[in-house]
Amino acid sequence: MGSTTTRVAAAPTTGSGRRGAAHRAVAGVDIGGTSTSAVVVSGAGEVLATARRRTPAQEGGAAMSRAAAEVVRAALRDAGGGDAGEGRIELVGVGVGAAGVIDPTTGAVLAASDSFHDWVGHPLVAELEAALAVGVVVENDVNAFVSGERAHGAVSGVDDVLGITLGTGVGGALVLDGTLRRGPHGGAGEIGHVPGFGDLPCTCGQRGHLETLASGLSIARRYAERRLAHGMSSPPEGWTAAEVAARARSGDLAARAVVEEAGLAVGCAAVMVATLVDVTEVVVGGGVAQAWDLLAPAIRRGIDARPPVSGAEVRVHRSSLGADAVALGAAAVAAARIGV
Amino acid sequence: MGSTTTRVAAAPTTGSGRRGAAHRAVAGVDIGGTSTSAVVVSGAGEVLATARRRTPAQEGGAAMSRAAAEVVRAALRDAGGGDAGEGRIELVGVGVGAAGVIDPTTGAVLAASDSFHDWVGHPLVAELEAALAVGVVVENDVNAFVSGERAHGAVSGVDDVLGITLGTGVGGALVLDGTLRRGPHGGAGEIGHVPGFGDLPCTCGQRGHLETLASGLSIARRYAERRLAHGMSSPPEGWTAAEVAARARSGDLAARAVVEEAGLAVGCAAVMVATLVDVTEVVVGGGVAQAWDLLAPAIRRGIDARPPVSGAEVRVHRSSLGADAVALGAAAVAAARIGV
Repeated sequence: MGSTTTRVAAAPTTGSGRRGAAHRAVAGVDIGGTSTSAVVVSGAGEVLATARRRTPAQEGGAAMSRAAAEVVRAALRDAGGGDAGEGRIELVGVGVGAAGVIDPTTGAVLAASDSFHDWVGHPLVAELEAALAVGVVVENDVNAFVSGERAHGAVSGVDDVLGITLGTGVGGALVLDGTLRRGPHGGAGEIGHVPGFGDLPCTCGQRGHLETLASGLSIARRYAERRLAHGMSSPPEGWTAAEVAARARSGDLAARAVVEEAGLAVGCAAVMVATLVDVTEVVVGGGVAQAWDLLAPAIRRGIDARPPVSGAEVRVHRSSLGADAVALGAAAVAAARIGV
Repeated sequence: MGSTTTRVAAAPTTGSGRRGAAHRAVAGVDIGGTSTSAVVVSGAGEVLATARRRTPAQEGGAAMSRAAAEVVRAALRDAGGGDAGEGRIELVGVGVGAAGVIDPTTGAVLAASDSFHDWVGHPLVAELEAALAVGVVVENDVNAFVSGERAHGAVSGVDDVLGITLGTGVGGALVLDGTLRRGPHGGAGEIGHVPGFGDLPCTCGQRGHLETLASGLSIARRYAERRLAHGMSSPPEGWTAAEVAARARSGDLAARAVVEEAGLAVGCAAVMVATLVDVTEVVVGGGVAQAWDLLAPAIRRGIDARPPVSGAEVRVHRSSLGADAVALGAAAVAAARIGV
């Protein structure tokens, strides 16, 4: 499928500079397992255009890089810039939010999920810089998500934030005093793999992590297991978390219990973080957050059952940027590091 | 009982300044539930003298302040300074490590254990400044402990550290990038009250905190409960954690199990912190750490059972300053804030 673009806001046609001068802008790209999206954001923080296309995850790293460059060009055309930034929009930098572990120095992909073919080791930054002729910075997608929600979204202007993405897995990012906490080994923020959540096996090989209760995969799997325990069958291809949520809404007790347990676990994780680093603002994104109607009250019950000893109120927000959070966050990272 | 002083190192008799000039020094005071101790530390970080006396915890805040001033004077006399800093040692500031929640701005005691009579609300800093005629800064005792271990002890020079004190309760302090993490509400570092450790009731009113397994009180109580469950009696006054450790060493299976569970829980807490903020250096103090021969291997088993997903090695050190850690840390805090 070709790329689709959406004009979000009209590009400014007059400015303080000379007539016809280009307006500086950055692009943000989200390379996700299913789709790759881009946003173009003005120096004033205005979203000028967005574009989206399918991620060619099975075609290898080079195809994914090409797709990312193409979707940036599509958004840029729509925002009023030329292919290489001519015209009314001058592209000055690109930020990329990418799944997996990214080397912050070289921009190479160090580790990633098996669903991306030929992606580990791919020189993503070098290829995008060659294709777009501007500086490119890359950031882990969960870090980009929380940067986007701080720049434009649910935790706008908040300096101490826990970001949680409930997707296939559970991702996390921690902002302390306005700065993303990376830690001496770059391993900070991994809320999905914090122990203290029972004893179920996790995708990482350990046990008892938040991810074993709150990821989309875990919700789907635990629902199937509960059905099996009650002698009920499941479709051969299994369930999705969205299907489990729909069944919970229509009164399926097993589905309700599984979603409730996911929310309680997220609430407990929020209390852990509030107790340990006094971060009491939490933003939750990812596909599972689409069941916010079920999830939010369960998270609240999880917090209220065992509030932090400090007495500080823990507030959990749903991502307000939805599918654009990572791309917008990547643009914010580029604006901060490259300047716009 | 009167104060006892120990000359730790000879005060320097010659220096780069003029003959007879006073050597600038800071004092650190540890106001603990049982005893109040002081150290005098030179500008070069040399410990010049220490002193210790009983804390008059039942006589109220004014008596505790007077005792703290007295023990500083005793250490100062022994280090070669006069009562008010005349002579070869010039006292330029005092740091106090005190149990409870301390207002970092006013130095007043905001909250404290019931074992201190008339202590909450006490103007500790103002009274000590009047008595000693120098600037006084006050710090929570666990924060002072980790500052001491970073300045002189087991984690000397390490910029990312979790400090845990296993005493009657479990205290915690977190240093990130060389700075004590306080958080927007001052509530950071409370590792003793992080959930995820089962469901036992905690002294704070919640359940499932690290303190329910790893504090001295919990170890003693859980041992008595295990004996009761096996039809064995306990002395009316109960046990101490030290007695439980001694029984564990002599092969008492119930005692061994309780100490083992405490160590496993501390290991799990270390992994939580490593996963969340990528802090992999841990220093453990407090009275329970005297059972380090039993505790250290159990902590190691707790870490190795579920290592952090980053793969970074978690290293747990026993406090190397022992009973002087808080006073030395308070002196380090004073030296940093007041200058020496």
